[in-house]
Amino acid sequence: MSVQDHDSESSSTPATKRRRAPKGEMRRAALLDAATTVFAKDGYGAASMRDVAEIAGITTVGLLHHFPNKVSLLRALLDRRDQRVTEQFATLEMAPTLENFLAFVRMSMRFSVHDLRECQAAMMISVESLSEQHPAWPWYKEKFELTHAHAQAHLGSLVECGEIAAHVDVKLLATEIFAVMDGLQLQWLRDPEQVDVEAAFDAYLQRLAPAIRA
Amino acid sequence: MSVQDHDSESSSTPATKRRRAPKGEMRRAALLDAATTVFAKDGYGAASMRDVAEIAGITTVGLLHHFPNKVSLLRALLDRRDQRVTEQFATLEMAPTLENFLAFVRMSMRFSVHDLRECQAAMMISVESLSEQHPAWPWYKEKFELTHAHAQAHLGSLVECGEIAAHVDVKLLATEIFAVMDGLQLQWLRDPEQVDVEAAFDAYLQRLAPAIRA
Repeated sequence: MSVQDHDSESSSTPATKRRRAPKGEMRRAALLDAATTVFAKDGYGAASMRDVAEIAGITTVGLLHHFPNKVSLLRALLDRRDQRVTEQFATLEMAPTLENFLAFVRMSMRFSVHDLRECQAAMMISVESLSEQHPAWPWYKEKFELTHAHAQAHLGSLVECGEIAAHVDVKLLATEIFAVMDGLQLQWLRDPEQVDVEAAFDAYLQRLAPAIRA
Repeated sequence: MSVQDHDSESSSTPATKRRRAPKGEMRRAALLDAATTVFAKDGYGAASMRDVAEIAGITTVGLLHHFPNKVSLLRALLDRRDQRVTEQFATLEMAPTLENFLAFVRMSMRFSVHDLRECQAAMMISVESLSEQHPAWPWYKEKFELTHAHAQAHLGSLVECGEIAAHVDVKLLATEIFAVMDGLQLQWLRDPEQVDVEAAFDAYLQRLAPAIRA
C-alpha cells in the first residue's frame, strides 16, 4: 500500500471539495509538488518562490494568488503531510497486540520512504526547524510531543495487556524506534541504491520483538 | 572524555603550527565557531558571511582575509570535524572483540552529542548536502562510503573471529547502528531535556549485544 493508492480512493478526499473546485485543487496540488522539489533541494530558508513557480509552470503572480508567501506554502505542505499520515493509519487494525504494533511501525516506515523527494523535503524542513526562529518550529515541536506521548501511551498499554515485558522502559523504547526510522531515512536519502530500508528495519524488528515480548 | 579534553592536550595540534601562528590559529578557530553557530541556525545555503563576521566580532573584510568565500569556510569546518574524529578514535583499544566494538560505538555516540551547536550544524550541512548541487555533497558521499565500508569490514572480522554470530547480516547491522546514532541526535536536537541519548543508546546496545554474540 502507498499514499498514492490511498489518494486514488474516492473516500480520501471529501467529495464536496472535489466537486467545488477540481481544477483549483489540482493546481494547488501541483504547486505543493513543485514546492516539495524546491524545499528538498534548497531547504525552506534558501528556497525561492520564483523557482517554485517556474517548476510548476506558472508565473510568480499566479503562485502568489494561491499562496501569498513562502510561509503559507510551508504550512499547506505540512498540513498535506499530516492529512496523508492520518488517512494512512486510519486503515490499521489497532487491537492492542505486539503484532499490530509492529505492523503499525512497519507501515509507518514504508510511508516515510514511499517518495524520495517528499522524504528529502520533510527531512530538510525538520532539520531546519530545529532553530526556534524557523516558522515550522512550533509545528514540529507539537508533533514531536504528541507523537512521543502517543507512542509511550500505546507501548504502556501493551505492557498492561501483558504483550510487552514489564521491565521495558517504554519512553526509551519509543525514542529508539523513532531513531531507527529517522536514521534509516537519512541513510536512504544519501544512497537509495545501497540502503535497503525495509530489510534493515525488518532485521531490527525481528531482534526487537522477542527481546521485549512479555 | 570529550573533544575539548582532547584538544587541551599539546599533542592534538602539531607543535610547529602552534609556534608559527598561535594568534592566527585562535582567530581561525573563533571564526569556525562563529560559522558553526550560523550554519546550525540557517544552514549553509541561507547563511551569510556578514552574520559569521558579526558573531566573531570582526569585519566582513577581516573574515574574507581568512576565508575568501563561504565554501572555504565550509571546507575548513568539515576538515576540523574530521580531524577531531580521528584524534578521538586514535585513543581506542581496537583488539577485535565485540566489547571493544561496543565501546567504540558508545564513544562515537558521545562524541556526536558533546556539543549541541556543533551537532546541529553537522546535521544541517549533512541534510542540505543530500542534494548533488551542494558543495559538501562529494565530502559526505565519500565519508558515507568509507564509514560503511569500514564498519562492515570490522563487523565482518568480528564474525570471522567468532565474536559475532555467522547468521548476522553485517551490512544491515552497520546500517542499523548508524541509523540509531543519527536518529538519536535528531531527537536530542529537537528536545535536549527530554531525550536521554546515552540511556536510549545503552538500552539499545544491551538488547543488541546478546542477540548478535556468537
